[in-house]
Amino acid sequence: MSSFTPSLDRLIEQFAKLPSVGKKSAQRLAFHILSMTDAEANAFTETINKARSSIKRCEICCNLTDTKVCTICSSQSRDKSVICVVEDPRDVIAIERTHEYNGLYHVLHGAISPMNDINPEDICIKELLTRLNDDVKEVIMATNPTVEGEATSMYISKLIKHLGVRVSRLAYGVPVGADLEYADEFTLIRAIEGRKDL
Amino acid sequence: MSSFTPSLDRLIEQFAKLPSVGKKSAQRLAFHILSMTDAEANAFTETINKARSSIKRCEICCNLTDTKVCTICSSQSRDKSVICVVEDPRDVIAIERTHEYNGLYHVLHGAISPMNDINPEDICIKELLTRLNDDVKEVIMATNPTVEGEATSMYISKLIKHLGVRVSRLAYGVPVGADLEYADEFTLIRAIEGRKDL
Repeated sequence: MSSFTPSLDRLIEQFAKLPSVGKKSAQRLAFHILSMTDAEANAFTETINKARSSIKRCEICCNLTDTKVCTICSSQSRDKSVICVVEDPRDVIAIERTHEYNGLYHVLHGAISPMNDINPEDICIKELLTRLNDDVKEVIMATNPTVEGEATSMYISKLIKHLGVRVSRLAYGVPVGADLEYADEFTLIRAIEGRKDL
Repeated sequence: MSSFTPSLDRLIEQFAKLPSVGKKSAQRLAFHILSMTDAEANAFTETINKARSSIKRCEICCNLTDTKVCTICSSQSRDKSVICVVEDPRDVIAIERTHEYNGLYHVLHGAISPMNDINPEDICIKELLTRLNDDVKEVIMATNPTVEGEATSMYISKLIKHLGVRVSRLAYGVPVGADLEYADEFTLIRAIEGRKDL
């Protein structure tokens, strides 16, 4: 195969390893890196190093943070009686964006998936259990509406229900603004099951 | 706006600056960087630094290379009487892939484009002129079939024609394997103009 000069090939290879970056995109990114000024390139690699060295998991909720305890856990204005359990830090952002939820979070960093060899001990479940003191009145399971998310949600709810903590699950249904015609059957079944009186 | 922890936000920002990387992709890439092992992350940043420090332009053809003179220019088996002029190092790869061309190349690193303030002196034209010694019998203009590529091709051919060097241009026509129905009118006009007797 035709190829560029060795160090450019290696650079393209590195980019091609990134998720959803194909061969053509990797080439474009590599050429872009070469066209950067020294200041831009340094900022790029320094930011990577800085982020990797300073970002860790919050000691309480396991969300990613630069500090020992994240801003949500250390906030005085958040309702400490509710914990919303999500799979991923991006889910926290999605829920925060609603500006409707004022409780705390717990980030599992994954979902139970025996097929992919991800067991309960591989995700942050025990960190959640240690948080369930008397202050916590409700745990909202907001794992993804997938087989793995469901299984994780069921598993955790079984573990904590007997502690007298209310465990709830996000409602299923048709997405707001979507066209009913395009809703899949499983979503429609759940939407009918969960119908409310008007 | 909801955001992650500062160093993660900065990392996402860095990725979002890359070409054709949107906000969502930038997030995915940043999370991937955080999930890398130390060895993988070091390989990534080291490869960037290494590529930037070692890749330069070939002293002869201006193609990107790790050495003073690129492998094509220093090859004994290439025909030194033909120079194929392209805009970009990627074009060299594209032509090499045909395995049909055995001459040398010259990489302009751009095309003349007054609209974007790219003038003849901003691309590697003078480096091409210094190469036109008695050995060179033909210069093939293989700039892109765009307005800028055309203009560049015309500009260069005017400069070198009087030196007694043959100047040719890649043929225009319908792409092999394509459906005639979808060919644009300009390509079809060129294909008809350039028709050959059977």
